[in-house]
Amino acid sequence: MDAERTESTTRPEEPAVSRVEQWENRTEWWLAAAALLFLGAYALPIIDPGIPPWLGNACTVVAALVWVLFAGDLAMRLYLAENRRRYLREHLFDVAIIVLPLLRPLQLLRLVTLLTILNRAGSHQLRGRVVTYLAGGTILLVLCGGLAMTDAERGHPDASIQSVADGLWWAVVTMTTVGYGDMYPVTTMGRYIALALMLGGIALLGVVTATFASWLVEKVSEANEEEEVATRRQVEQLRAEMRALREELQRSSGQPGR
Amino acid sequence: MDAERTESTTRPEEPAVSRVEQWENRTEWWLAAAALLFLGAYALPIIDPGIPPWLGNACTVVAALVWVLFAGDLAMRLYLAENRRRYLREHLFDVAIIVLPLLRPLQLLRLVTLLTILNRAGSHQLRGRVVTYLAGGTILLVLCGGLAMTDAERGHPDASIQSVADGLWWAVVTMTTVGYGDMYPVTTMGRYIALALMLGGIALLGVVTATFASWLVEKVSEANEEEEVATRRQVEQLRAEMRALREELQRSSGQPGR
Amino acid sequence: MDAERTESTTRPEEPAVSRVEQWENRTEWWLAAAALLFLGAYALPIIDPGIPPWLGNACTVVAALVWVLFAGDLAMRLYLAENRRRYLREHLFDVAIIVLPLLRPLQLLRLVTLLTILNRAGSHQLRGRVVTYLAGGTILLVLCGGLAMTDAERGHPDASIQSVADGLWWAVVTMTTVGYGDMYPVTTMGRYIALALMLGGIALLGVVTATFASWLVEKVSEANEEEEVATRRQVEQLRAEMRALREELQRSSGQPGR
Amino acid sequence: MDAERTESTTRPEEPAVSRVEQWENRTEWWLAAAALLFLGAYALPIIDPGIPPWLGNACTVVAALVWVLFAGDLAMRLYLAENRRRYLREHLFDVAIIVLPLLRPLQLLRLVTLLTILNRAGSHQLRGRVVTYLAGGTILLVLCGGLAMTDAERGHPDASIQSVADGLWWAVVTMTTVGYGDMYPVTTMGRYIALALMLGGIALLGVVTATFASWLVEKVSEANEEEEVATRRQVEQLRAEMRALREELQRSSGQPGR
Repeated sequence: MDAERTESTTRPEEPAVSRVEQWENRTEWWLAAAALLFLGAYALPIIDPGIPPWLGNACTVVAALVWVLFAGDLAMRLYLAENRRRYLREHLFDVAIIVLPLLRPLQLLRLVTLLTILNRAGSHQLRGRVVTYLAGGTILLVLCGGLAMTDAERGHPDASIQSVADGLWWAVVTMTTVGYGDMYPVTTMGRYIALALMLGGIALLGVVTATFASWLVEKVSEANEEEEVATRRQVEQLRAEMRALREELQRSSGQPGR
Repeated sequence: MDAERTESTTRPEEPAVSRVEQWENRTEWWLAAAALLFLGAYALPIIDPGIPPWLGNACTVVAALVWVLFAGDLAMRLYLAENRRRYLREHLFDVAIIVLPLLRPLQLLRLVTLLTILNRAGSHQLRGRVVTYLAGGTILLVLCGGLAMTDAERGHPDASIQSVADGLWWAVVTMTTVGYGDMYPVTTMGRYIALALMLGGIALLGVVTATFASWLVEKVSEANEEEEVATRRQVEQLRAEMRALREELQRSSGQPGR
Repeated sequence: MDAERTESTTRPEEPAVSRVEQWENRTEWWLAAAALLFLGAYALPIIDPGIPPWLGNACTVVAALVWVLFAGDLAMRLYLAENRRRYLREHLFDVAIIVLPLLRPLQLLRLVTLLTILNRAGSHQLRGRVVTYLAGGTILLVLCGGLAMTDAERGHPDASIQSVADGLWWAVVTMTTVGYGDMYPVTTMGRYIALALMLGGIALLGVVTATFASWLVEKVSEANEEEEVATRRQVEQLRAEMRALREELQRSSGQPGR
Repeated sequence: MDAERTESTTRPEEPAVSRVEQWENRTEWWLAAAALLFLGAYALPIIDPGIPPWLGNACTVVAALVWVLFAGDLAMRLYLAENRRRYLREHLFDVAIIVLPLLRPLQLLRLVTLLTILNRAGSHQLRGRVVTYLAGGTILLVLCGGLAMTDAERGHPDASIQSVADGLWWAVVTMTTVGYGDMYPVTTMGRYIALALMLGGIALLGVVTATFASWLVEKVSEANEEEEVATRRQVEQLRAEMRALREELQRSSGQPGR
């Protein structure tokens, strides 16, 4: 029961409303597929800027369709929710994904959907989930950061990041806080992306530490519980002996009275 | 009770004197407003060095007035304190804010007042407070560090930090210890500011870790307490049975005596 | 018992099959010697690119022979295993060492064998083992990273890493995440090696933290156990007194019955 | 008792021999003064390379005299030790300080004596000691690293570190792992000093973490102990009631027997 409570504190946004949950369970794989499709449509024009115009337009259309899909999903979930105001307040991040993406890099926030899938698809053990999250989150951050950075920097006369390979290398060097300085953003947009990547990296480490710590607490509690159970078993035996004594006394006090 | 004690060890400077506390409760929002005003008056000539002279002079006057306000507040608190020598010893930081700022960057220490407000305004839960402190402290450090660095470096022939945007970008890259090296201080004053920012960043992380650890200890203690309470309830039942046995015995030994 | 369980969770790949274990105990020192020999054969042409052709060829032959030795060892262990499919699944890393090394730097994975030796040869205490692992793993990572990086970069026109001394210095600066930027990889292969070194460095820190945390849990459990044992001793005394009371009662109730 | 044991594991080199301890208590302040004198004699020719020859010679003589003093102290402690072989084995670091300093930077290891003084002079509380150690160790590392680096690099044609101010700035930037890359060692000696500083910085953080963790364990144990004491007090009351019951029974069984 203690382990459950520790769990729930790390995911307090989970609604108790069952109709929304049913909807989420039915749609989450489709949303993840849409997010992957969006990643492809976002990445293609960045990886090869020389694609024919019709392909570039197709990518734009796909990205727009994914946006419509996400907006429709949120609307449906809001419609199904019992307490709509509370649901909105607890899912501000989902709203932000729909409302904000006037700036291109922010559109990548849609990929967070993939992490939710990882959470469900991953093993049910805490440690397995940590590893899945860590690996998934890191790869997603490096991928998105590298792509968005290349998109923002390429073409600027002073830019050191000129290809997706450069962008990914820059993202790895930044996330590990090594920061050689062979590549760094020079545009304002690039610096905002760098800020997001640094914060994302620190947040990722924070999630790992927190989950690890909760696992540690659980471990210590289990060890204590075992000890306490042993103590209680002994007290239980004592009570049994006490009861036996009482019965004997009742019998012995009953016998003389006969 | 254990949680309270853990709490108090992290904030041992809190005075038990009620008159000073009343004064503090009444003035803290005014002081925070004054600190924000000072931040504006400090930042304006740095953000735009080409402001007309009268505006620059106004900023200097506002900064001086805020200094007078802070000095007056400290004098009043000292006057109200029951044990003035002890109060002075426990508030050396407040004294330093008043006495030291002959060097311009040190004047920014007044903004620590804002953090005290965050502490009171923030949620009463430990985790909420940690997040508030972390976010508030980081933003304040980056803002102050970036402004002070721009003020110190701009105009130096070898300086790479030439605008507030550069200064803020440098502060972020330094706080996260990425350190690309595209921008770094070259003046002696700039290096001292960098030292303060690095130490501030490490201290910030230290505060987070310490609060997190105390939360962990509390969590483990709670889990143990639950277990112990279960054990004690069992022992309590045993005692009740014992008392029942004793009463029976007294009755049975009383009956034969009749 | 708790300490054992904590231990086993960190090394779950240990087989319960005794015939394989016997084989491993008999061959591990030979494999470690072969790994060291391979390190020499790998390092020599990198340290001095001007060695005579026959020596270069000899190094290639030695490296190939070590590969044959490792492949033979894995085949023998698979032959001896009771459940071969499960053994294969639990030793995917060993299989990867044999199958992957078409790329030269991956061949260095063979040296992980040396860490296994450290694990057995090191002291049986947790803390001693952590220190041994940390020191051994770090030295191995810096050595391999520096050598592989020099091999990959040397000769490239833009490369800043031109000698083994440069490569080792780069590895130290990268592992500690200082990242001056005086040296950094420019080739694609070099960047993959850098990625591996950064991940390896983070993994190393993770192993240290995890072992340290398990030691902490053990320590807390021990302290609790002592307390619980004291409580249980007291309950035991209570039971003894109870038994004495019961015997007295039986005697006293027996006497009147005579 | 648990707290004591945790303490002793972090300082296992403390001898139980009382005569050596008496000697150490009497000489430690003199040795610390000698170490400070040595620091001055080491720093002076580095801070100002243009000092007159007689002052340079005086510094060399002072450094040599301090060496003689340290060697004499170790000889005396060895003479006073009950088990000399064991004492030597437990004080290998002290021996290294005397034997190694053929290389100039290694002579700075003598300053570790100052940390021992910090340990004794500092407050007796764990947290106060951690802060003292952290501050003292960091300042000492930055000071020694900066001085030794300046000594090693100055004069080299490619060197970026040309003055003590540069050296200290480099040390701070390296210890915090920011690593801008505006200054970095280019000589082999300088790189070894950088390696020592990086390892020293990591070790310092390790000491802090370990002490912090032991404090945490102590805290959890204390909380548990309180709970257990409450349980035991209850069991104690139960035993008292049991004894009262027994006496009543003996009296009641004694009365009928009369």
